[in-house]
Amino acid sequence: MSKSPEEKGLPSGLAHLENTKSFEGIEKVKAFLEWDPEIYKDPKNHEWMSAITPYISILSYSSSLPHPSITFKFTVHPIHSNGLNNLHGGCASTIFDACTTMVLHLISKPGFWQYSGVSRTLNVTYLRPVPVGTTVHIKCDILHAGRNLCALRGEMRSVDEDGRDGPLLVVCEHGKANTDPPAEKL
Amino acid sequence: MSKSPEEKGLPSGLAHLENTKSFEGIEKVKAFLEWDPEIYKDPKNHEWMSAITPYISILSYSSSLPHPSITFKFTVHPIHSNGLNNLHGGCASTIFDACTTMVLHLISKPGFWQYSGVSRTLNVTYLRPVPVGTTVHIKCDILHAGRNLCALRGEMRSVDEDGRDGPLLVVCEHGKANTDPPAEKL
Amino acid sequence: MSKSPEEKGLPSGLAHLENTKSFEGIEKVKAFLEWDPEIYKDPKNHEWMSAITPYISILSYSSSLPHPSITFKFTVHPIHSNGLNNLHGGCASTIFDACTTMVLHLISKPGFWQYSGVSRTLNVTYLRPVPVGTTVHIKCDILHAGRNLCALRGEMRSVDEDGRDGPLLVVCEHGKANTDPPAEKL
Amino acid sequence: MSKSPEEKGLPSGLAHLENTKSFEGIEKVKAFLEWDPEIYKDPKNHEWMSAITPYISILSYSSSLPHPSITFKFTVHPIHSNGLNNLHGGCASTIFDACTTMVLHLISKPGFWQYSGVSRTLNVTYLRPVPVGTTVHIKCDILHAGRNLCALRGEMRSVDEDGRDGPLLVVCEHGKANTDPPAEKL
Repeated sequence: MSKSPEEKGLPSGLAHLENTKSFEGIEKVKAFLEWDPEIYKDPKNHEWMSAITPYISILSYSSSLPHPSITFKFTVHPIHSNGLNNLHGGCASTIFDACTTMVLHLISKPGFWQYSGVSRTLNVTYLRPVPVGTTVHIKCDILHAGRNLCALRGEMRSVDEDGRDGPLLVVCEHGKANTDPPAEKL
Repeated sequence: MSKSPEEKGLPSGLAHLENTKSFEGIEKVKAFLEWDPEIYKDPKNHEWMSAITPYISILSYSSSLPHPSITFKFTVHPIHSNGLNNLHGGCASTIFDACTTMVLHLISKPGFWQYSGVSRTLNVTYLRPVPVGTTVHIKCDILHAGRNLCALRGEMRSVDEDGRDGPLLVVCEHGKANTDPPAEKL
Repeated sequence: MSKSPEEKGLPSGLAHLENTKSFEGIEKVKAFLEWDPEIYKDPKNHEWMSAITPYISILSYSSSLPHPSITFKFTVHPIHSNGLNNLHGGCASTIFDACTTMVLHLISKPGFWQYSGVSRTLNVTYLRPVPVGTTVHIKCDILHAGRNLCALRGEMRSVDEDGRDGPLLVVCEHGKANTDPPAEKL
Repeated sequence: MSKSPEEKGLPSGLAHLENTKSFEGIEKVKAFLEWDPEIYKDPKNHEWMSAITPYISILSYSSSLPHPSITFKFTVHPIHSNGLNNLHGGCASTIFDACTTMVLHLISKPGFWQYSGVSRTLNVTYLRPVPVGTTVHIKCDILHAGRNLCALRGEMRSVDEDGRDGPLLVVCEHGKANTDPPAEKL
């Protein structure tokens, strides 16, 4: 019986990639979020995203060009707190890093953002505090994706009782550099 | 016998503040980093900074105006990884948020940044990858601190075998808004 | 006969303010853009905005909270060029500085952004080149405006033959600090 | 007699490039700043940089890796004013765009930043006002320059009567994308 990528001892990021590479578009994002192997539940195997991914789900998406987008749902838990019962700024940055990157799967193909690139800039502006317990919507758009560079945007909003978006709470702009090997070499 | 702030059930940020308020300048930063009550070792009481503070120490500092600074030392552990055995971008943002803020203690006084303010902007640029296991120096400067606003800068560098600084790895600019009540009301 | 503010030798920014202070909301923005006294047509009285304001007009606006906005129209002229027949990056920054600031007039009142504040941060991301001759739409939103700080956003888009918005060309985030004297002192 | 690049009707940026291509390093920066053909003195041929370049001179430089730098000198004139007798924010952005870019000449070679690239991000933070008449030093560093991307930093400081640097006035980070054709094709 063949070993799973994580049993082979791949770093979790590469294991993740191998586990989701047969999917495309929004299905790839779902596979990414649902991937939950036993070994990563062990606290000694935790990495920086372990406290974020379990709390993210997909609300809606659009693949239409020039600005594809996904809206995610997230609820702030005590582990995300800054010690004053609000979402920690570094945690908001981490959420945006993860969520804006996932939108790239809507357009990725071999040689073009299939490895999701690496962050060059991650600029976050905190407009209003986000108390622990709040459920937020996080809309992420591709502003531009070229061969070497992309620019992504994230917007976190509160949601009222009727599910309608409230004012912007935190916004971000995320610049990444492509790391795919040239398509012909894949 | 009087209860400790954490036993009183204060949010950890306020407990922290109460525990360090009798210190000034670099002693306050040390007290902040050394504070390590039993109850916060329990994983169920973890918050966003719990995976960062234990790995930070003070290397050197300068209180001289107009740009006071502290240089911290940090070693990247697996918990800080992005799944590809490098420091996660959101983790670097979190480290910078914490480290740049601590420099404010060098100049704080009642009514003036004693509560450390809240983040308005946290902009991080990733220049070179930082592999797990790397020890880095993080130099944080106050660019400007006024009554309502401050601008802080962070620079993460590698360190060579002889302890000399290598090239810049990650840089940040952190803008905060003062939240102190007016001094006369304290 | 009373002297005009510019004849009194006020700096043009204060003269501008005095000339538009009897207006409110979008009328104030119009008065601001239409103000065109003889003495500022003399090249020796030119200042940094002299090459921008004549080319800006208002296309539409919304005062609805929490995110009031104005969309401006602008055509790129040779004076705005980077020497390669595209809009210069510093010129795009200048346009955004001016346009995002004008949206504050939709909500300003004595003590609250009536002096338009001063820039703290102006962060611009250039997504696609903008050739000389292009007409663009510049949508500017108030992300958040508090007592001391505001965050504004600008988006520059191309316009197709039918007047429909094309892809984003340049985006900006502009942070300002309020400089109004307290309302009770006005 | 052969025509000069500007007589050939090249856009000024390309004419500039052609006029300076026989120089290297700091000599190329000097040639760039000293280039002052008659036709660009005519106001009808002005472009966005025409109000900046005449006021910039080189104070000192360092080519030592990993962070080469040049310090420029600049005096704020009325044309650079925001109408309140201070340096306009968009003008500061323009100055930084120009000055940080020039440092690339210290390391450029065919295929590697010889065309100076194009701006991707230009983020400026205004710490203290800069009155008209002030002479400032502008230190520009290469934070990182790779094959596709570079990150540059600019710092504007006041200068006291004895020529010593005062506090930081304005700071910037400038991200560019390389536009050189591959070296083998040059």
